[in-house]
Amino acid sequence: METILQSKTKTIVISPEHPFVMIGERINPTGRKKLGAEMAAGDFSRVRRDAETQVAAGAQMLDVNAGFPMGDEPTMLVTAIKTVQQVTDAPLSIDSSVVEALEAALAAYEGKPLVNSVTGEDERLEKILPLIKKYNAAVIGMANDETGISMDPEIRAAIAEKIVRRAQDHGIPPADIIIDPLALTVAADPTAARVTLQTMRIIHEHLGVNMSCGAGNISFGLPERPPITAAFLTMAMTHGLTCAITDATNEMIRYAVRASDVLLGHDEYAVNWISEFRQKKAEGSKQ
Amino acid sequence: METILQSKTKTIVISPEHPFVMIGERINPTGRKKLGAEMAAGDFSRVRRDAETQVAAGAQMLDVNAGFPMGDEPTMLVTAIKTVQQVTDAPLSIDSSVVEALEAALAAYEGKPLVNSVTGEDERLEKILPLIKKYNAAVIGMANDETGISMDPEIRAAIAEKIVRRAQDHGIPPADIIIDPLALTVAADPTAARVTLQTMRIIHEHLGVNMSCGAGNISFGLPERPPITAAFLTMAMTHGLTCAITDATNEMIRYAVRASDVLLGHDEYAVNWISEFRQKKAEGSKQ
Repeated sequence: METILQSKTKTIVISPEHPFVMIGERINPTGRKKLGAEMAAGDFSRVRRDAETQVAAGAQMLDVNAGFPMGDEPTMLVTAIKTVQQVTDAPLSIDSSVVEALEAALAAYEGKPLVNSVTGEDERLEKILPLIKKYNAAVIGMANDETGISMDPEIRAAIAEKIVRRAQDHGIPPADIIIDPLALTVAADPTAARVTLQTMRIIHEHLGVNMSCGAGNISFGLPERPPITAAFLTMAMTHGLTCAITDATNEMIRYAVRASDVLLGHDEYAVNWISEFRQKKAEGSKQ
Repeated sequence: METILQSKTKTIVISPEHPFVMIGERINPTGRKKLGAEMAAGDFSRVRRDAETQVAAGAQMLDVNAGFPMGDEPTMLVTAIKTVQQVTDAPLSIDSSVVEALEAALAAYEGKPLVNSVTGEDERLEKILPLIKKYNAAVIGMANDETGISMDPEIRAAIAEKIVRRAQDHGIPPADIIIDPLALTVAADPTAARVTLQTMRIIHEHLGVNMSCGAGNISFGLPERPPITAAFLTMAMTHGLTCAITDATNEMIRYAVRASDVLLGHDEYAVNWISEFRQKKAEGSKQ
């Protein structure tokens, strides 16, 4: 199952046979007040820099979110998308829960984007799926609905299936659906990671769609989060996770993803690994 | 399934419900010429220091090997065991392929040791299993035999079952057998890690015994080995690995193991994780 995303000039394939795709998470004013205030004031220089930094770190795609209380989200999102498209050919994930902003961004985007995201709620599905079809996008489907986030893997998987079937009703193939099995923090519920992994097992076996998650959520509230996030990404990759919205600039996370690619056969004879290491060694000797 | 190891004063339990057990690998003259020469000359000060360092780093058990070309292995192994027993109460893994050395070390060891190791070869089983029974030890069973190391998970699992059944014939319960599903390097064969993981799946489902491996072997020959070893340990822990002979002094490996303990529910509410981080932070602020 291959999910194909495109910018104007570049194609990225998300699939179990391809290297894991890191979708850079940084361009998001949630929790970044300074960024949000700048964007609301029309200053997108940080957006530009963050795009360049994440791509340089190895993110193959970038998530772009412009949700900020003081701002005009549709306008800000379009400007952010256009800004990022100027500095990188990485395909983008358009991240908004405001349908008007989504539609404006989809109209401005050049290529085949990923939309982040839709849930299992009928109201959301019926608003967003037609846009996905209209603009030939792919979409991340969150495995929760109006009843909330279930800790039962079977229920999460059932919502995932509902999203895939509803998308098919709208003429959207399963290859354009990436399911997010939901990562909640183990700090609040020690079973949280195992619930996500079991959900992935079921979805992998029964639906076969690509899967994504906001991996950092698994460690929220704990000290030393990167090693926990990194270990969770590794575990999830053995259960069918093929991409994640994550911090590609964090070395521990990047190492875990790339090492797992080697171990799972997505980097035969460790060609990518070895070249990344040579580059690191070369940079180190320049210092 | 609980495998219980003991020193004179301390008990360590290896099981899927307990934290992962790191068995420190450093006391081994293979590839450490200086150490081997010192031991052959009767100098065990480095053995003493390495024992202390590994335990301080968090290894719950220590592997002790005295196989060195120039030395009298039985004598060296007994001295090494006694030396280590003086400085730590961590239970030990007695590591030798020389039956005479094994027997001497088992007689000198105080407590219930782990023996590293036996293979599926009839000759080895019939020589070593009676010693295991006589000294009430536990033993690591390697999933290879006189035909070599198979890349077929079913064959490896069949050898594992042979070892468990033969041990039962000798009055040794499955709880005292830890199977090593064999980790070969992905540098030579890109399928190596997946073969090991699949072997573990079969053994976990059909035999339910504890499992160990020399995790570092998976990355032999590659640059930047620790992240690959660490990712492999994480993957293996989701497939039933409950202990490993590894380098507990390597922070990346230690982090991966402890983070995986949190994610898999062996460290409820991350109590151990948080206290290890507090200690690290405290040590950092002293510098």
